[in-house]
Formats: sequence, structure tokens, C-alpha cells
Amino acid sequence: MSIARANTAAARALVAGLARAGVRHAVVTPGSRSTPLVFALAEQDVICPRLVIDERSAGFFALGLARATGTPVPIACTSGTAVANLFPAVAEANLSRVPIIALTADRPPRLRDVGAAQTIDQVHLFGRHVRWSVDLPAPASPSDAPAYEVAGRRAVSMALAGIPGPVQVNAPFEEPLVEAPADHPAGWHPATGTLPRPVHPPDAAAIADVRLQLERARRPLIVAGPETGGLPCTPLLRLARALDAPVLADPLSGLRAGVDEGAPVLDAYDAWLRAVTPPAPDFVLRFGSAPTSKVLNQFLASLGGVPQVLVDLPGGFREPNGLVPALLPGDPGEAALALEDVRAAIEPGWCAAWVEADRAARAALDGACRQEDGAFEGRVFFELRDALPAGAALVAGNSMPVRDLDDFFGLREAPLDIAANRGANGIDGVVSTAAGAAAGGRPTAVVVGDVSFLHDLNALWLAREHALPLLVVVVNNDGGGIFHYLPQVAHEQQFERWFATPPRIDACRAAALFDLPAAGVESWPGFRAQVAAWLERGGPAVLELKSGRAENVAMHRRAWEAAGRAAAEVFGR
Amino acid sequence: MSIARANTAAARALVAGLARAGVRHAVVTPGSRSTPLVFALAEQDVICPRLVIDERSAGFFALGLARATGTPVPIACTSGTAVANLFPAVAEANLSRVPIIALTADRPPRLRDVGAAQTIDQVHLFGRHVRWSVDLPAPASPSDAPAYEVAGRRAVSMALAGIPGPVQVNAPFEEPLVEAPADHPAGWHPATGTLPRPVHPPDAAAIADVRLQLERARRPLIVAGPETGGLPCTPLLRLARALDAPVLADPLSGLRAGVDEGAPVLDAYDAWLRAVTPPAPDFVLRFGSAPTSKVLNQFLASLGGVPQVLVDLPGGFREPNGLVPALLPGDPGEAALALEDVRAAIEPGWCAAWVEADRAARAALDGACRQEDGAFEGRVFFELRDALPAGAALVAGNSMPVRDLDDFFGLREAPLDIAANRGANGIDGVVSTAAGAAAGGRPTAVVVGDVSFLHDLNALWLAREHALPLLVVVVNNDGGGIFHYLPQVAHEQQFERWFATPPRIDACRAAALFDLPAAGVESWPGFRAQVAAWLERGGPAVLELKSGRAENVAMHRRAWEAAGRAAAEVFGR
Repeated sequence: MSIARANTAAARALVAGLARAGVRHAVVTPGSRSTPLVFALAEQDVICPRLVIDERSAGFFALGLARATGTPVPIACTSGTAVANLFPAVAEANLSRVPIIALTADRPPRLRDVGAAQTIDQVHLFGRHVRWSVDLPAPASPSDAPAYEVAGRRAVSMALAGIPGPVQVNAPFEEPLVEAPADHPAGWHPATGTLPRPVHPPDAAAIADVRLQLERARRPLIVAGPETGGLPCTPLLRLARALDAPVLADPLSGLRAGVDEGAPVLDAYDAWLRAVTPPAPDFVLRFGSAPTSKVLNQFLASLGGVPQVLVDLPGGFREPNGLVPALLPGDPGEAALALEDVRAAIEPGWCAAWVEADRAARAALDGACRQEDGAFEGRVFFELRDALPAGAALVAGNSMPVRDLDDFFGLREAPLDIAANRGANGIDGVVSTAAGAAAGGRPTAVVVGDVSFLHDLNALWLAREHALPLLVVVVNNDGGGIFHYLPQVAHEQQFERWFATPPRIDACRAAALFDLPAAGVESWPGFRAQVAAWLERGGPAVLELKSGRAENVAMHRRAWEAAGRAAAEVFGR
Repeated sequence: MSIARANTAAARALVAGLARAGVRHAVVTPGSRSTPLVFALAEQDVICPRLVIDERSAGFFALGLARATGTPVPIACTSGTAVANLFPAVAEANLSRVPIIALTADRPPRLRDVGAAQTIDQVHLFGRHVRWSVDLPAPASPSDAPAYEVAGRRAVSMALAGIPGPVQVNAPFEEPLVEAPADHPAGWHPATGTLPRPVHPPDAAAIADVRLQLERARRPLIVAGPETGGLPCTPLLRLARALDAPVLADPLSGLRAGVDEGAPVLDAYDAWLRAVTPPAPDFVLRFGSAPTSKVLNQFLASLGGVPQVLVDLPGGFREPNGLVPALLPGDPGEAALALEDVRAAIEPGWCAAWVEADRAARAALDGACRQEDGAFEGRVFFELRDALPAGAALVAGNSMPVRDLDDFFGLREAPLDIAANRGANGIDGVVSTAAGAAAGGRPTAVVVGDVSFLHDLNALWLAREHALPLLVVVVNNDGGGIFHYLPQVAHEQQFERWFATPPRIDACRAAALFDLPAAGVESWPGFRAQVAAWLERGGPAVLELKSGRAENVAMHRRAWEAAGRAAAEVFGR
């Protein structure tokens, strides 16, 4: 058996292992060393491979696709710096717990560290940022194929075991990489299987302990932080109702859409907590990662000796506020179910006051959005709340968009998959991530600032190449708006050049470069009409809202103040 | 002393250490955590800071600038995935031996691995790809500043000691990051110093051994491979002339420009070695890394028992052909000087035949360029050989451009700084690298394919932002031309989609997005006129040559065959 034949067999075995373990989507990037992997992916029909030219973009695309489909997504890439380009997405996937699989083709060991072309030290390149990595032997005979199949299955298993995350399979190939066409075996059909679904029953002793505490609680508070794929909505709301506890729901918790209006879900706290100190809870049950809202984190940190319990998968710990919470290790949905029959003597009106204050604040925020009929950035999310159909997806960029999402999106009954890269909160790869979500099949809107948009310009290529149902809303205030809320803004001499960093990029012209339809937002009715037209038409589009950074600071402050006044009035009664 | 004051003092101390160690250029990327570093850089006048928004682009920009200026270039970046974006350039810098310094701002240790925003595990993130990395303590008092100054100096020292390369300084900062304007100390002046220049005298025993071998040689051959900054031209040519040995000079060796026509420097071997087997040498002295030319590497590998000596810095080993060469550790210039008085009884006509064959092949290649008046990609370098003024710079993209450079640039007397990213040979970051070279002050032309151009689109932003004297020549054949020379081309069903990967990008429209002047190449006189106009005008520009992949395969083959015939005729006489 020739080397080429061994390569084909091994690469197909690897793909077979992935397919058997439930993988259905893959990303392919250009290159030669990865040829066996690319052939193996291109010649079967169980896993759908998609081409992405820029590997950095490919990594985020896979991340978005994995999150949207709930399945691990492998990225086949060639040897060398291509691998390092995946690192930003791997770092994000590690922290946001998304299973992506770096399938990195490599030169064989004899060519490593001897000055060979396109050969870097890529074994375990991602260090502690992956759950698992393996350096396979270069295929030399048929007897090597089984190890490749095992690696495919293990990659999936390791990406989903414990806390989900990225893994790396490094696959070195000798030349010739592939047979001549006459000798190359025809298309093939991998056997299919289903994804492993590891279960994490909550720790019994911890449950017992939390039950005891909950029974004594008079003013319990639930915090639902960001969670990839969303927290389990139904058990959480059942628990909240059973306890009569308000739920402070992060926009990335999965509890801001598909939830009925009567649920005790709070969505305006980031605005009103700036001005109002609510009655203190005597017990806090936390799900998901640390909230997006800085003021909510500060509020949690201010609670001093109030017991706080962190529900997370075993080994998880996401509490950056310096607190020492108790841990409840296990699946959050199972944990909620195990607690819902607790009956505590809750202080009358406890939950109602929080809900009422929050609803009043929300009305004030909505009112501010309607009033600010100029280019108010927050209004983008207020409009998208109603404009996106049930089952669509919404991705928010980091820095300001995710904060505007928090403050101005509110809550809606129709389901919506809301996501952001909140593992590492990078401004990189945001549009590529959204493109991955759109590749999952849902109409997807992404809201991104101009700095972030420029950073990930190549994502537009993806949108065109794969005709993705992706609406890119660029909030173009020519710079990093978030810095206007930071102390750096006071340093006038350095601010504009080194912190605001105006990119001078025109999103409509960028769209045109990739033949995407694009329009500027001239009015809010116009915005709604554009969104509707995009939904009608399908495919990719770009909308650009030109806004002013300084004016938006004022608009935000006015909205927050209105929300604070509204909430204060309720709590003050 | 407040935290903010400690941050300012520490960051200034770090910059002072860099300035004292000879650093004069830096790159700054956007972000908040890096504020103390950015202020420290922006408020002094010894080191010139330049803003780059995309960190991946920033890494390559720093690489190009470091190579062009011969000085280590720090890149200040914020915490999180920003750091991971530097990895592709760090991997290249490691292998191409370029001193860049990743100054990575970080959150303080208490915020690591607890789910804090923009916090990834970035300590030693670059693994074995850096020469040195340090995780500094978060500044808390004035007594922390000296450690920062030491780190600045050590970063330079470690980046240049032994084999030059990248280093990382990880600098965590607590909030508040910077004082209020009234409390912030005014601009400052770091003390200057000069770069350390480590010397590597050649190993005396190895020199003695090589002298003995050279004295017995009758048919010595010198191979000058790629070397960052160029090999030491004068001592190498003196040695070649003293020995009467032909020098096979890689286009990245520094020996293809600034060399008089009479020198025994061969530049056409990649074309004629495909068809001709020259008389075998009995001794090979090799400088630099493995040649760009695959056929030359194959020729070297085919020499069997012929002694080959690798001259390289101590610890260097760049021989990917499976040979076991003797090593001559030390500075290549010093080694050449130490050997030039060797007198051997060289076979009469030995060197002359090689030179004559190569000159004949070069004439054939030049003739082919003149004849192929269609869109022959190789002709770009033939034209640039004469079109670029003395002291300009030329950067070649990977895949086809660097091979075309090898075959069609030839040799010229006027100096020209020729470079490519040949450490890892990535197609990423090529234009950003060239932008860095242009930022060093020379008019710089970069020749890049369309796949590589798309990958690094953000480099055009750099060209505009810094008004760089950069000519981007895009050889646009809508895909990866190099794959047409690989076995994958025979697989028609998979080829175009998965290997040629047509990006459908219009370089002139891309230029327009960034307000850069651009033109399509319609004829070769037109090309020359455009280059002349760019040189006259200064600043950035884009030229696009639309070519056909299949036609270019035929054109290349015709040129190589003509070169082979010409060389064969000389050797056959």
C-alpha cells in the first residue's frame, strides 16, 4: 500500500470517526498538506464541508456554526502559520465552551525543526486552551487508519466531556499526499451516529446544602448569566416561580426571548442599578457565567456576607468579582429541577417589587428609544426585538453592542437565539461568528461596531461565498465608542488617536467590494423596512448606521437616568 | 502612590528599558488594558509608535518593520484574543529570526481563570515559539518600576541573543489604569542607548576542519540560502572568488542585488536544474536557510556522500533534505573571512562552466519574459528588476510570487532589499509585512497573489493610515496558481473548488475601499509607467495584473525549457 493510499485511508477514517460521533458540519481552508483531509471531507455526504479562505475567519465561523447547531465543528487546515490563525477562535471557544476541532495537517516529524517549508512547531500549539490534543503518526500503512478513526471519535468525545471546548487533532502526512485520479478510490459513505450527550447530575451533597439554605431564605435572587446555547429556560423559570424569586436575566442567558411576559424575568437592571440600590437579597443563586452588566457584577460584589451559590458544570468557576461563592456542580437544568420543590417563607411582595421596578424601567428605556429619533445606537436592539422573526438569531459585537443589547433589547415572547463571543470578549471574529450562525440555517442579524467590522472584514467574503442569510448591522461611529465611558476620555491629547482609533471605513463600500447589497440607515422606519426587505429577500446584506460617539454618550445617559427614576419610584413607594 | 501612578511609572520604565536598549519603532493596537503602555509610548519622542487596528496585521507589520530597520519592534496590545492574533507573526518571526516583542497587557492574576472579561490564559501563550517570555507583577508601588525597566532591556537582549527571534513581555495592570489628566505626569524623555550587537565568532575547531576539507576540494560549490537581512555579501563573494567557487544565490540571500555582474553568482539554477544535471561538486558550503528552489534542494539531496557544511549561528540547523551536514557554528561573515585564504587546486573551468551555463539560462529566461507579452506572471519580477530604484525594497508573497522572484528577477547591480516571509512560508500577513518594510522608509513593492491579498486585506488600511510608500502588485489569477503544479490538479472534480479556491476579489475595488489609487496592468509598458508614476508620487498604490492560471503554467514551462536548453548547451560542450 502506497503512502498516498495510506493517507486517504487514514483521512477517511478520521472523518468516519467524526461522522460516527455525530459531526455534520465542517470547515475547510486552503492548502496542500491538508489534501487527504480535504478529499476525505469533499468526497462524502454525511458531513457538509464549507470553504473559508482566511483561517482566522474560519475559526470563528466554525465557532458560530458549532454554537448554532450544538455540534462540534472541525476545521481542516494546512500546516504552518495557518494553524496559528485559528488561535483567537480557539481561545474564545475555550472560554465560551464551544466544541470546535482544529484538524491541523502537518509535515511529518522528520521535517520538523529542520528549516522545512510551512513547518512550525504546531504540536500542542494551543497549550492549555484546548481540552485535548493529539499528534497522530504519519500514515504509512493500512494499519494506521484505525488510530485515525479513534482520534475522530475521541476528538468529539473530549470536546464534549466535562466542560465543552476546543480540541486539536494534528495529522502529519508524507508525500505523495493523494493518489493519481485513476488509483484514487471513489466517493464514500461514512457510517453515521449520534452525538455523545454527557450528563452531569448535580452533586447530591451540594443540592442538600443549597436546599437547606433556600428553605431559610426570605429574599432569594436568581442571576442568569450568559451561557453558550442558553441556560435551560423551562426549569429555571419553574424554579423562579416556585421560589417567587426574581431572575436577573443576562441577554446571553437564553431567558430574554421565548419567555412569556408574566415570567419574573428582569431585563432592565443594567440601566436602573446605576442609580438605584434595591432591597438586598439574603440568598443568591447564580447560573451561567458572570453577567455582561458591570453594575450587576458590582451589586453582587457589594452583597458582602449574603450567601451566593454558583451552579456550574463540575470544574467550572466563573466568578470574577472576588467573591467566594458556594459551588453547586452539575447540569444547571437538573440542579434547578432538584430545587423546585423547596418551599420557603418568602417575604411578601419581594419578587413583585423587583419585577415592577424593572418593568417600569423597561418602559422608560423603550420610551427613550422612541424619543431618541436621531442615530441612537441603543435603538438598534429596540427595533430588532420586534423586527426579527421567531427562530431567527441575533449576534451582538463586543464593546458597545452587547451592552446596548443588555439595555435596550428587553424581553420578547417569540424565540430568538441571542449570542455573542463572551468567553474572551474580543472584538475580533464577530461577523465571522455570526456567519457561522447563519450557516446553521437561521436568518441571523449581527450588530457590530466599525472597529470590529474592519477587524473581521473577510467575514463578508464568507457571506457572499455561502450566500448566507446574514444581516450585518454596522454601528459606524468611526471609532471605539466604549472608550467614551472610560477614564481615558479625559485625556484629550491622546484620546482620539490612540483610544478612539477612528478607522475611517465605509461599511456600504465594504459591502460593495463583496457584491453585497447595502444601505445606510436614514430613519427608524427605514431601518425596519430594510430589515423586512432582507428577511423577504434572504441572503446577505449590510446596513450601516452612522452615529456620533459623543452624542450617544448623552443619549445613553438620558436613557439610564429615565430608567433609574422609574425604578426608584417603585422601590420608594 | 496610587495604582494609576504605579502603572504609569512601570509602563514608562518598560519603554525606557526598550529605548535604552536601542528600540526606535513600536506598534500600538487598540484596547483599554494596554492604556499604561500606550500612554508611555505616546508621550515620549525616542520610540515612534504607529497605530494598527487589526492585531494580526500589526504583528506582521512589526515583523516587516523590524526586518527593514534591523531593530526589535515591540507591539503593545490589550489582553484577551488580541494576544492570540499576534501568533501567526510570532511563528514566522521565530523561524525567520526576526526580533519582535509582544508587549501584552493583561488583567492582574486575581482575574485569571475566574471568568473575567477579556482575560485569557496568555502567560507563555506563544509556547516554544518565543526566545523568552516573562509575566511581570502588576505594578502596585514605585518599587515595581525597576523590574519593568529590566524587562524592557532583557526583552531586547533576549530577542537578539543567539538566534534572533520574538519574545513576550506580559504586563498585568490593575485599575485605575491611568491618572486623571491633572495628576498625570507630562511628556517624558527616555534615555537613549544603542542596540546590543552580539558576536558569534566561528567555532575554531570547526573552521580548522572545514579548511582542511576545502584545501582538498577540486569542485567546491557555495549555496547562499535565504537569510533575514541578507547574508554578508562582501565576505561571501570574496570567499567565492578566492576559491573560484560558484555561488547559487537564493533571491532572499541578499546576493541578487548590489552585486556586480562579474561575480560568480548564479541566479537561474531553479529554471535549468529542472532539465540539466550539472557536474557534481565535491564539497558544498552552505549559508542561510534551505533554498527556496525545490529543485536545488533535490539536487543537494542527490549529492550522496559529497561533504556539505552548514554555516549557521550556534544552535541553528536548517537542512530539511534529510542530509547530515557538518556544522560550522558562528557568524557567516566571520566564517567566510576565516576561510578566504584557503588555496585549493580547483579544477580548471569548474566555476566558469557553472557561471556560463547560468548566464545562458538567464538570457533565455529574460528572452521568455520579453516574448510572453500576455499576462505572464513571471514577468512582473523581470520588470521590477529594472523598475525599482537603488535602495528600494521588494517583498514577494509565498506560493508562486517567491518562485517567480527566484526564476525571473535574476541579478542586478543596484542595491535592493529583497524579502519574503520564508520562515513558515505562510500566505498570511504578506502585505502587512511589506507595509512594515515601507514604514522603515524605503519605497517598497510587494507582489502577492489574490488569495494572499484577500487574506491580508486589512493591510491596505495600514497603507492609507500611515501614507506608506507601498506598491501592492496583485497577481490576480483568481485562485491558488501553485496548485496547478501539484498532483491535486489532476483531480478535476475537487480541484477548482477545494484547491484553486477562487476568491473572486477585485484588487482595484479593494484599493478604492481604502481610498488608494489603483490601476489594472494592461501592458508591460503600462506596468512600467505605473511603477514610475508611483515612485514619482510616493504613498501607497495598488496595481492589479489579471492573469490566467492554466496559461501561466504553459508560459512557465516554456521559460524553464528554454533555460534548460541554454544551460545544457553550455555543459554539453
